[in-house]
Amino acid sequence: MLDIDRRTFIAGAAASGLLASFPRLARGASGKAVDLSPVYDKITEQRRQSIERIQRWIQQPSISAQNVGIAECCDLTMDLLREAGFGAVKKMKTDGHPGIFATLDAGAKQTMGFYFMYDVQPVEEKEWSSPPFAARLVDKAGVGKVIVGRGAVNQKGPQGAFLAALHAVRAAGLKLPVNLVVVAEGEEELGSPHFSQVVWNDEVMKALEKCQGVMMPAADQSLSGTVNVVLGAKGIVYVELEASGKAWGRGPRDGEIHSSMKAVVDSPAWRLVQALGTLVSADGNEPMIDGLTDAVRPVSSQQKKLLDDLAARWDEADWKRVFGVDRWVNDLDERAMLERYVSRPSVNIDGLYAGYIGEGSKTILPHRAFAKMDIRLVPDMTAKDVLAKLRKHLDRRGYKDIVIKNIGSYDPTDTALEARPIQTELAVYKAAGLDPVIWPRLGGSWPGYLFTGKPLELPAGHVGLGHGSGAHAKDEYFVIEPAAGKKYLGLDGATRSFVDFLFAL
Amino acid sequence: MLDIDRRTFIAGAAASGLLASFPRLARGASGKAVDLSPVYDKITEQRRQSIERIQRWIQQPSISAQNVGIAECCDLTMDLLREAGFGAVKKMKTDGHPGIFATLDAGAKQTMGFYFMYDVQPVEEKEWSSPPFAARLVDKAGVGKVIVGRGAVNQKGPQGAFLAALHAVRAAGLKLPVNLVVVAEGEEELGSPHFSQVVWNDEVMKALEKCQGVMMPAADQSLSGTVNVVLGAKGIVYVELEASGKAWGRGPRDGEIHSSMKAVVDSPAWRLVQALGTLVSADGNEPMIDGLTDAVRPVSSQQKKLLDDLAARWDEADWKRVFGVDRWVNDLDERAMLERYVSRPSVNIDGLYAGYIGEGSKTILPHRAFAKMDIRLVPDMTAKDVLAKLRKHLDRRGYKDIVIKNIGSYDPTDTALEARPIQTELAVYKAAGLDPVIWPRLGGSWPGYLFTGKPLELPAGHVGLGHGSGAHAKDEYFVIEPAAGKKYLGLDGATRSFVDFLFAL
Repeated sequence: MLDIDRRTFIAGAAASGLLASFPRLARGASGKAVDLSPVYDKITEQRRQSIERIQRWIQQPSISAQNVGIAECCDLTMDLLREAGFGAVKKMKTDGHPGIFATLDAGAKQTMGFYFMYDVQPVEEKEWSSPPFAARLVDKAGVGKVIVGRGAVNQKGPQGAFLAALHAVRAAGLKLPVNLVVVAEGEEELGSPHFSQVVWNDEVMKALEKCQGVMMPAADQSLSGTVNVVLGAKGIVYVELEASGKAWGRGPRDGEIHSSMKAVVDSPAWRLVQALGTLVSADGNEPMIDGLTDAVRPVSSQQKKLLDDLAARWDEADWKRVFGVDRWVNDLDERAMLERYVSRPSVNIDGLYAGYIGEGSKTILPHRAFAKMDIRLVPDMTAKDVLAKLRKHLDRRGYKDIVIKNIGSYDPTDTALEARPIQTELAVYKAAGLDPVIWPRLGGSWPGYLFTGKPLELPAGHVGLGHGSGAHAKDEYFVIEPAAGKKYLGLDGATRSFVDFLFAL
Repeated sequence: MLDIDRRTFIAGAAASGLLASFPRLARGASGKAVDLSPVYDKITEQRRQSIERIQRWIQQPSISAQNVGIAECCDLTMDLLREAGFGAVKKMKTDGHPGIFATLDAGAKQTMGFYFMYDVQPVEEKEWSSPPFAARLVDKAGVGKVIVGRGAVNQKGPQGAFLAALHAVRAAGLKLPVNLVVVAEGEEELGSPHFSQVVWNDEVMKALEKCQGVMMPAADQSLSGTVNVVLGAKGIVYVELEASGKAWGRGPRDGEIHSSMKAVVDSPAWRLVQALGTLVSADGNEPMIDGLTDAVRPVSSQQKKLLDDLAARWDEADWKRVFGVDRWVNDLDERAMLERYVSRPSVNIDGLYAGYIGEGSKTILPHRAFAKMDIRLVPDMTAKDVLAKLRKHLDRRGYKDIVIKNIGSYDPTDTALEARPIQTELAVYKAAGLDPVIWPRLGGSWPGYLFTGKPLELPAGHVGLGHGSGAHAKDEYFVIEPAAGKKYLGLDGATRSFVDFLFAL
């Protein structure tokens, strides 16, 4: 299965240089100093199994949008949690794909929560250089040995590294210094429409209330090696807008008709285009939905300081390369781009469809047209309010017939820099000789609002070193072994970062 | 193969009432009166073979846009022409799908040209109530026994009826009163991009120059039985507009990226939407391409008179039912709708695409977006000028990066009411007791400009009775036997109309 051998691996790990500076001592649950060397040794010893575990996870497709492999991947994830030492692992029924609730009682005083997702984005298989569910180990030029596959970095890779940490602790004969609670879902990529049914279950709530916070395993290092700590995430409103002759009472009612009729028949496709055009500025960059930005919280002075620091250290060229983007909107400079990225809502077209899109021509007037859109929210916007504003905006312009289907929406999430899990994370990274940059907010979304919002009001964030990219795109990857000279960590380093975090709590 | 038996057929034919009133005498090539009764009898006798011929034609898919079955259908069409008596049948190579040039030398003084097409539109098979290439005989409620299939009315059914007429004439032992020239193409549904390579071939031009005109077999009766004679057709400009990060130099260059990046990355999908929005009025009905309508020829007083007559007799409810449309643009009344339909250009979206259009959600910022569009032209607009104006319109608004791909475009066509083939057609219909309505122009398009334009400058039009519908849509059909009480003709009547036309020339 493995395309690279153990020797290459060790050479890679040594070359990264950073591993050596990790702390080898930590405080155990008893308060006594614990030597973590045996755990680190086990990480290295168990590397092959850890890689195979991630590959097994990726090889089980779990595309929530298409209900492909979801049931199987839920079961697999439960097995992986049991194998990693979770004593109680329950499937949690929801009105959609099931969630998972798992606990590991280490007999410790402290309890820490972790959030997992087991679903992945759909794939356009023909665009991939390596099949998305083959989970092949590939030598990626300038990056290193990576696992290529859908879910590699979002989130099976980082979650696999987290589980590898638990395996290593147990193999080293140590007890975990904290009890663990894992809540998982299989609908993150759908906008977590039913995850509240998992979190707000009485038994789960009781377990979560004991937690210091809820963290999501991550590969928080960029291609330049920078460690990123994020204090929040944007919310999301994912909707489908549909214009149709049927709902409109104009245009073709039942099906597409000959396009010569356009001279005298209204077009739902033009209706959608013109309605969409009112939602953003002419350049497509400023949200123009009435009142959308009213609730946007101004950037605080603490955030401005964090952004100054971020801009000074952030590798803009790296981001441009990774995303294949030559310039930012309005040709913003680094600092302005970063502030906009973390603090402004956005209105995006994810998909657009009407009529005939095959080769050549088909002369039809389509009877329906739809757009898939996501609106990203920042505090203090709420998903509910944005949905209402979108409806009102369209209604006011006469587009009452355009149907808004809410596919998955939730609020933004925010955690204070001062929160204990965040401070612990920062301390661990600093002890490892790393100097993390702190992001006031992630541009992406995760349903952390269920933890940070009422009634739990817990800190929530991401933790974990390592690197990967391509989430939601082709050739998604997670680094197993960095190329020579690279400053991010591979799988061993990522695994170690979870060990250190758990023992530092 | 047949779902209906011969008896049902005859009952249906009798019920239609109209057949009886057809002329049974015509002038032959020699100028002598010819009794056409034996020909009509042969039409009835050969009905089964005529139906099977149309079914065989439909059962050979010939989707030009997808290059499905084109070579096979070209050969089949050539065989069908040979079987019908054409002595010389040549495949004409073009830079696209081949054309056909066929001649039937009857030793007559007069020669008449006919235009055939052997290609069809693509299909969305799951939308069809009967498989599009099964060519089943179906009992269609309120319509009659029909052949359902892609190409049934556009054009394999009417062309099949025309060939049936030639078979019947020969079987009756008569000589055709005119020589025939057929020019055919397999790219009509692509906008006839290479048909000029067939028509402007020296040998073909020499044959066409001898023709009185070039007619297209048609099923010119509406559901209410009205006979429609058309004097021209709109031209068409079929284009694909594409916005991409690559061409723009903004937005994602190489592939879709995570949609959270919209806050700071330009969107080709929004760019396309906003550019499209400038091409039409807010209601999607008025072309707004700079200068597009400058060359529109005003409606003449003859045309106004024809439209008055048309509006008085036209069955609006029938059209609304057939197209599934409850109201026309701007809630126009019959007369205004008709004038607009025949005299105004239109700008239509045939297809629209960006990003993810599957089930549920995928959070991406697409790197490209495209629209398929058709612009219908009226005299004196030209395809070349419209293409240039579209380019200029986009350039002027800064959309120089939006690529316009010309998929198939040609000029409108116009024939005088006074032209001989038209007057012959009208005389034949009137002699049959029918009172045709005359359309100044067809809303659809066909490449008649190659005949009516320079250098040939021949009359061109459509001829033939019968009824069918659903061209370019699902459940396309051609009537074999009308339901009781219906005033349009079935296959026998349609075939007879071609016999009468040929003998009246």
